[in-house]
Amino acid sequence: MNFTSDTSAPAHPAVLEALSRVNDGPAPSYGADEASARAKAALVEIFETELEVWLCGSGTASNALSLSLLCPPTSAILCHAESHISCDERGAVEFFTGGGKLSLLPGEHARIDAAALEAAIGAIKRDFVHETPADVLSLTNLTESGAAYSLDQLSAHIDRAKAAGLSVHLDGARFANALVTLGCTPAQASWRLGVDVLTFGATKNGGLGCEAIILFGDMRARLPELHARAKRAGHMPAKMRFLAAQLEAYLQDGLWLELARAANAAAARLADGLARIPGASLAHPVDGNEVFAFLPQETAEAMLAAGASFYPWLDGSYRFVCAWNTQEADVEALLDAARERA
Amino acid sequence: MNFTSDTSAPAHPAVLEALSRVNDGPAPSYGADEASARAKAALVEIFETELEVWLCGSGTASNALSLSLLCPPTSAILCHAESHISCDERGAVEFFTGGGKLSLLPGEHARIDAAALEAAIGAIKRDFVHETPADVLSLTNLTESGAAYSLDQLSAHIDRAKAAGLSVHLDGARFANALVTLGCTPAQASWRLGVDVLTFGATKNGGLGCEAIILFGDMRARLPELHARAKRAGHMPAKMRFLAAQLEAYLQDGLWLELARAANAAAARLADGLARIPGASLAHPVDGNEVFAFLPQETAEAMLAAGASFYPWLDGSYRFVCAWNTQEADVEALLDAARERA
Amino acid sequence: MNFTSDTSAPAHPAVLEALSRVNDGPAPSYGADEASARAKAALVEIFETELEVWLCGSGTASNALSLSLLCPPTSAILCHAESHISCDERGAVEFFTGGGKLSLLPGEHARIDAAALEAAIGAIKRDFVHETPADVLSLTNLTESGAAYSLDQLSAHIDRAKAAGLSVHLDGARFANALVTLGCTPAQASWRLGVDVLTFGATKNGGLGCEAIILFGDMRARLPELHARAKRAGHMPAKMRFLAAQLEAYLQDGLWLELARAANAAAARLADGLARIPGASLAHPVDGNEVFAFLPQETAEAMLAAGASFYPWLDGSYRFVCAWNTQEADVEALLDAARERA
Amino acid sequence: MNFTSDTSAPAHPAVLEALSRVNDGPAPSYGADEASARAKAALVEIFETELEVWLCGSGTASNALSLSLLCPPTSAILCHAESHISCDERGAVEFFTGGGKLSLLPGEHARIDAAALEAAIGAIKRDFVHETPADVLSLTNLTESGAAYSLDQLSAHIDRAKAAGLSVHLDGARFANALVTLGCTPAQASWRLGVDVLTFGATKNGGLGCEAIILFGDMRARLPELHARAKRAGHMPAKMRFLAAQLEAYLQDGLWLELARAANAAAARLADGLARIPGASLAHPVDGNEVFAFLPQETAEAMLAAGASFYPWLDGSYRFVCAWNTQEADVEALLDAARERA
Repeated sequence: MNFTSDTSAPAHPAVLEALSRVNDGPAPSYGADEASARAKAALVEIFETELEVWLCGSGTASNALSLSLLCPPTSAILCHAESHISCDERGAVEFFTGGGKLSLLPGEHARIDAAALEAAIGAIKRDFVHETPADVLSLTNLTESGAAYSLDQLSAHIDRAKAAGLSVHLDGARFANALVTLGCTPAQASWRLGVDVLTFGATKNGGLGCEAIILFGDMRARLPELHARAKRAGHMPAKMRFLAAQLEAYLQDGLWLELARAANAAAARLADGLARIPGASLAHPVDGNEVFAFLPQETAEAMLAAGASFYPWLDGSYRFVCAWNTQEADVEALLDAARERA
Repeated sequence: MNFTSDTSAPAHPAVLEALSRVNDGPAPSYGADEASARAKAALVEIFETELEVWLCGSGTASNALSLSLLCPPTSAILCHAESHISCDERGAVEFFTGGGKLSLLPGEHARIDAAALEAAIGAIKRDFVHETPADVLSLTNLTESGAAYSLDQLSAHIDRAKAAGLSVHLDGARFANALVTLGCTPAQASWRLGVDVLTFGATKNGGLGCEAIILFGDMRARLPELHARAKRAGHMPAKMRFLAAQLEAYLQDGLWLELARAANAAAARLADGLARIPGASLAHPVDGNEVFAFLPQETAEAMLAAGASFYPWLDGSYRFVCAWNTQEADVEALLDAARERA
Repeated sequence: MNFTSDTSAPAHPAVLEALSRVNDGPAPSYGADEASARAKAALVEIFETELEVWLCGSGTASNALSLSLLCPPTSAILCHAESHISCDERGAVEFFTGGGKLSLLPGEHARIDAAALEAAIGAIKRDFVHETPADVLSLTNLTESGAAYSLDQLSAHIDRAKAAGLSVHLDGARFANALVTLGCTPAQASWRLGVDVLTFGATKNGGLGCEAIILFGDMRARLPELHARAKRAGHMPAKMRFLAAQLEAYLQDGLWLELARAANAAAARLADGLARIPGASLAHPVDGNEVFAFLPQETAEAMLAAGASFYPWLDGSYRFVCAWNTQEADVEALLDAARERA
Repeated sequence: MNFTSDTSAPAHPAVLEALSRVNDGPAPSYGADEASARAKAALVEIFETELEVWLCGSGTASNALSLSLLCPPTSAILCHAESHISCDERGAVEFFTGGGKLSLLPGEHARIDAAALEAAIGAIKRDFVHETPADVLSLTNLTESGAAYSLDQLSAHIDRAKAAGLSVHLDGARFANALVTLGCTPAQASWRLGVDVLTFGATKNGGLGCEAIILFGDMRARLPELHARAKRAGHMPAKMRFLAAQLEAYLQDGLWLELARAANAAAARLADGLARIPGASLAHPVDGNEVFAFLPQETAEAMLAAGASFYPWLDGSYRFVCAWNTQEADVEALLDAARERA
């Protein structure tokens, strides 16, 4: 009954096995191997567009590298106050951009509030040298609260940013989980809306450690700069084939969506059960694989006593994260423990 | 007949299989897992001392993180002009230190010349604010030219640096290959000499992607800072167990030394054969798994025509890198091609 | 009728004339001159304690250099959301610290709210590597809204910070103006409260361009690092005597306090007059030389039509800044213009 | 008999007096004042071309800001191994560029050797991500050894750089001294050769503290970025009029060239006298205001005993710097002391 994080989950066997398939004889280093080419081809097919891609073992680095392409050291990035890049990456964006700023916006369920975005963009004075103007909007879907932006919400935010000359980054550490909920294509949830750079996560959803930085449209021309930045940040794995193989297996035959669907289903079941506990309530919409719930203290204690693990959250709720391998039995056992005490 | 690089070699099966052994159920993220604890314990045993360790998928990052602990942004690092940190890491050290400088020293076979080191250390004016004083000596063993420093050479360099208040980093991307040649213990080639931080490589010698940053002695107290720096650089893999498992398998039953011995033996055989080619000569001592040789152009062309791959080097020589899996047959085939033409 | 900023004011004649007095023959460069020694001695006398000092032509640089001593690149600085370091320095702190973060706190009149400070300090999890812990509290007195913290307020904030292990920086760009209002000694408003580093401004109050970074107590030992950081930031003027002479003249015979008193008196007169305009109200306490007032639009327009200059502020108020040379006649003329229309 | 440095010299009275002329009433801050406009107009006239300019109190900052416009954090700057940016700026360029590298070239008299430049440029592999390619050539005229590049030498270096796609920075801390020797126009020694950004020094030649960063040609469009970078580095003086007034006076009626001529003449006289001392020899051509001479030890001691001050240099020579105010009598007194002992 481990609900601490999807990063605590193992890799999917198919992803792990893919490593063996590429472990045969010599292969060019640093991304020039055939598995990397196949992984890119799979992304092109899935996203239905030309794109450039760089693989990275870390979500933090993927976000920070992406943003370092978009944000000069003298500029700022609009993002949610609870976003991963603001709260959970120990200043990675400031480091990789060479001192760029995060400009924090509020909004329920870790979705940026439209009025706050409007106000922030409206306040940009590009010619006023003392202030740091925003050049980038960074969105996260699934949000840090486990909610999804709808396509309409994304579209409105992105259109507003683009109209003001900002570029757009999407942190898709849990892109698959959002996509399953939105019921749309990868293209519809990314570049067709205007996303310039996507951090496409696989680690939390069955990978060992693999995120793809995807450059769309005009950003494709920035691949050499991304290479240079990745290299000097130590994010150019010598034996890249072992990242590429993960991504290839992850994308094959829709495995990635299947795993996200499983995790989301487990979360939905869990959310449904928790919401019925007397005195409990959900803190956020459950649009993916994360459940945030306010619980009577004795309920939480009963769960812990039954051997479950999960984290208390800043707002007083508890966070339960389901993964691709979360078992129905585990969810039921957790709910049983909660119900007993209720 | 691939002699391009040891990074082009596959992972050793035992290392790869270890990933499956840890891929079982949930495990704490970010290095708090049991495999990480076991990997550390193995290092403690092998190095015969208390130490702290952080695992990293990248040699470049391991070096840069190590040096960012030792070198403030206003200081410099003494290193060889041909060192990996100077020539092959795209400014990673400058990036991670926040603008620290590399102060380049000459020396044959990419070993720092003792007189040049003496001159550089003697010229440090710590109170002269305009110049950038060196605070660190970074050595590489095996050197970039495939030579090994002897223990005496290391000792003299390190003693000189320590006497001047510098700390010492050792880039051990090919530490195993050097150790086999030196015929000493890991302790004798590192902390007993005064090395403060060691980049201990596994990637080139059978790993998928795993380097260990090892903190000795007083540097152990800097582990929290290393954690923070690793985190913000995106070098804190969520599923750390997959790095730890590599290291564990790599160290088990002396596999790491066995693999280095095999690579070194292949290189020795190759060097011996090349040296006998009329008109050919070795550019550097072959103390590990790398052979640099000056060859008649037609010899090189004959090798390429026979299907061999290897790189021309800046000094006009050719570099041949053997790996843990280099086959005697491949070496012989390469030499046959060379001999035919000679 | 120029009320745009105290940076638009000229230098005080005594300060300007001091430049001529040091412009005689050769003098050691980079702060080793006699005027620098005299300026330091004057500060020691005025602050009644041993201290170290570095002079800088820029308030932004003084703040950023100060904070770069206190905040490692992996840490954060607690400051007010409207502070100069956050809003008006184009990311200087992020740049000088190598990627440190500003953690923004609310509070009326640009004073940090005590409860918000308590919450922020209480939330620091020093061992949780993903978040960026605050290591510094940066206060501003006079605040950006022209209000002063009382000694009690300062003391409470500083004590809370110190208890949690944070160091304390005070941005005193308008320290003189605050001091006059507080009616205390420089020591009482700085190091006796626990301030570690003070940015002591002279530029806005009669200087040409001179700020002093003052290190108190244990921070004095960090002077060599400050020198190195100042040098590499281009804040080590070759002919330092011309900064030192400014500070010397500024401090002589209490000139600095006299000038601040004059500016404050002008602001008080202006505030008093504006507050009596029907429909007008003061936005913030007028504790120094700045007046923020909400005004009927026609009042503002009448002032502008009469030839006055001043800036509209973000909150809808107008900012009027008095300087050491603001004339009573100008204040009265401004008020006359306002009254006519009222 | 102070020959330590031209930074130890006072300001020229005309430059100092100019401060008083602008110290009259309010003036817009941050470079929007009339004196700044006049200073720019004077530069336009003198350089016979449209240009953009930013004033800065520091030569180190001027160089580093200039280079931060030209060199991305992933690139390198070709410069002489003894250049000021390499040896005397404590890593400012690395800091301002966010981790860019200096690639050091040899050459007599601190002039970059043509063959070394050719080799360095020829070795650039723009697509090889591991190495740091040079994007900039930084020249210094007068060089750090007091020699001047001829126009032909400059032209050849710049043409070679431009042909390889590099941009060109000229450190003109002693541009006036070089110009007097070259006997050409400012335009001929800068933009007409292809210089993109010029650091135009006044501090050493009669200023209090004023350097101009001059953007030529296409670089003019980068002024907003220069503004932003200057602001965040604390190099946007609030009361810019006091820098502008210096430059205006410095340029008026050819004062700057007159002062340089005087300093050069003093150096020529000194060099001529020293060269005649038995056992003495000049280390470098004396093309400006600096004399480097190898001297018998007793000669140097006799000079010191006579009250002269000057510095021993790294190569065993002694450096004597003349300034705009160096008196013939001082030169003769120094030579007398030397001759007595010889």
